[in-house]
Amino acid sequence: MTTHPSTEANRLADVLYNARLRVDDALGRFVPAVAPGSKSECPPRLAEAMRYSLLGGGKRLRPVLCLLAAEACGGDSEMAIPAACALEMVHTYSLIHDDLPSMDDDDLRRGRPTCHKAFDEATAILAGDGLLTLAFEIVARHTRPADAAVACVLALAEGSGPIGMVAGQMADLEAEGRDDPSIEALEAIHRRKTGALLRASLKMGGIVAGADEAVLQALVEYGHAVGLAFQIIDDLLDVEGDEVKLGKRVNKDSGLGKWTYPGLLGVAGSRARAKSLAEEAVAALAPLGDRGTTLRSLAMDLLERDR
Amino acid sequence: MTTHPSTEANRLADVLYNARLRVDDALGRFVPAVAPGSKSECPPRLAEAMRYSLLGGGKRLRPVLCLLAAEACGGDSEMAIPAACALEMVHTYSLIHDDLPSMDDDDLRRGRPTCHKAFDEATAILAGDGLLTLAFEIVARHTRPADAAVACVLALAEGSGPIGMVAGQMADLEAEGRDDPSIEALEAIHRRKTGALLRASLKMGGIVAGADEAVLQALVEYGHAVGLAFQIIDDLLDVEGDEVKLGKRVNKDSGLGKWTYPGLLGVAGSRARAKSLAEEAVAALAPLGDRGTTLRSLAMDLLERDR
Repeated sequence: MTTHPSTEANRLADVLYNARLRVDDALGRFVPAVAPGSKSECPPRLAEAMRYSLLGGGKRLRPVLCLLAAEACGGDSEMAIPAACALEMVHTYSLIHDDLPSMDDDDLRRGRPTCHKAFDEATAILAGDGLLTLAFEIVARHTRPADAAVACVLALAEGSGPIGMVAGQMADLEAEGRDDPSIEALEAIHRRKTGALLRASLKMGGIVAGADEAVLQALVEYGHAVGLAFQIIDDLLDVEGDEVKLGKRVNKDSGLGKWTYPGLLGVAGSRARAKSLAEEAVAALAPLGDRGTTLRSLAMDLLERDR
Repeated sequence: MTTHPSTEANRLADVLYNARLRVDDALGRFVPAVAPGSKSECPPRLAEAMRYSLLGGGKRLRPVLCLLAAEACGGDSEMAIPAACALEMVHTYSLIHDDLPSMDDDDLRRGRPTCHKAFDEATAILAGDGLLTLAFEIVARHTRPADAAVACVLALAEGSGPIGMVAGQMADLEAEGRDDPSIEALEAIHRRKTGALLRASLKMGGIVAGADEAVLQALVEYGHAVGLAFQIIDDLLDVEGDEVKLGKRVNKDSGLGKWTYPGLLGVAGSRARAKSLAEEAVAALAPLGDRGTTLRSLAMDLLERDR
């Protein structure tokens, strides 16, 4: 018996919605409260800026992938909530810093002024620094057993650090204005800039669930393919998307002279590449059997997203 | 038998020098190499900026305190090398970000152009982000057993995050221009801005050596007092110090309207407060007995520093 596609799409939408709610709820508890006049060591303005950016909506893709990975490995996804929240904190910090005037110089994010516009540059830099550091605190404080906590810290640091996400942002900045784009060079950027943290999201879910090396490897391969597919769709939405739905400027990448998939492969070529990557992602999950159903549906669903 | 003061000073100088050498050597190995054209995932420019700031000298106070704390608890300080290097990475990242134009806007650090002057703002932000993230990676990867690694990650994150160092920098920026300075408000800034990471340095050394709660608490109290004493001397050097020896601008704090100890207590009052804090630090180490000798000497020695 096969599930009817639209039934499966509805089921997936429910799963994602519930996972997002759980993540949003936990994020609100993990980040310092704005408490003017209180004895909190966190200055109200810093707490406010961190909360503004972290709790300002977003797809919560990384934490949701982490929770789904834990479930796909037979684990209790509640155990993965700290890791999931840490991933969203790291993602949010990267957006705050990437939006700064000396980086991508963006005014709009998730439909609202960027952190340095709503506050100021110094506060935005510190809010980013604070979220990155808090991410490691949350993982270390709340993940059990200690071996899993250490493995999660390591996966998070590798995914987000100078051979991961930070490397990708540097490579992306360096590519601007260079006139020798290639699909290999573009993928080398995205493998680090967005891919590394997406791979870490899946791996951390698996680690918390006690998955073995082979399953972790399958999750990482899935994350790799989904990450690139996600980026291609992002580039397509920048060309074809709706600024209101997206909550950020469109056509900004080509305007900045950034390399993009549509620029290199055309729109149709980009769509085909995204579809083939989503199929790779689905295939990578073979070792998980039926437990991988939700992650498989998610990979195919990403192709249809409009925000 | 009492040790002759100048003999003890020489012994201390040797101990500090050797500890610094070990830290410098390990830092050079832990941070990504500059490898143009290699397959490294870390872009050469990012590696170069991280190495420029991290390996550009410095007192290495935090890592040295960490190693000495491990020894004072009867541990093998070699086991504390990763924690020690992580502390210096976090300290260096904080200097890079604090020096940015939107923060303290400094051109000179450790006798050389600041990171954003030697490279550019975007690279400096990313180099700082990279060093902060790498710090957690190094602790998680190299500290044993897992319980100690988790406790070190937690201590490092608490000391450097939004209730620690980042909170202190935010509070410091907010205090600028306010006209209601008080010694309590000034110490509340320094307790977080420099004190929190110094306390973490001692605690991490103790954790790696397997110290019990009472000893960790003694180390934290020592770190608290030494941290404030260190800051007072820093403020005094800004008033009285030699720009060439210090490798940074002097008289900049009063020029910026920053609150300082000499501004609030006068030069003599500040010296007296520093001395009394150093004595508090010495007293806090009573539970460590003779093993605390080097840390005690260091606390008193800080009063004499001229750079």
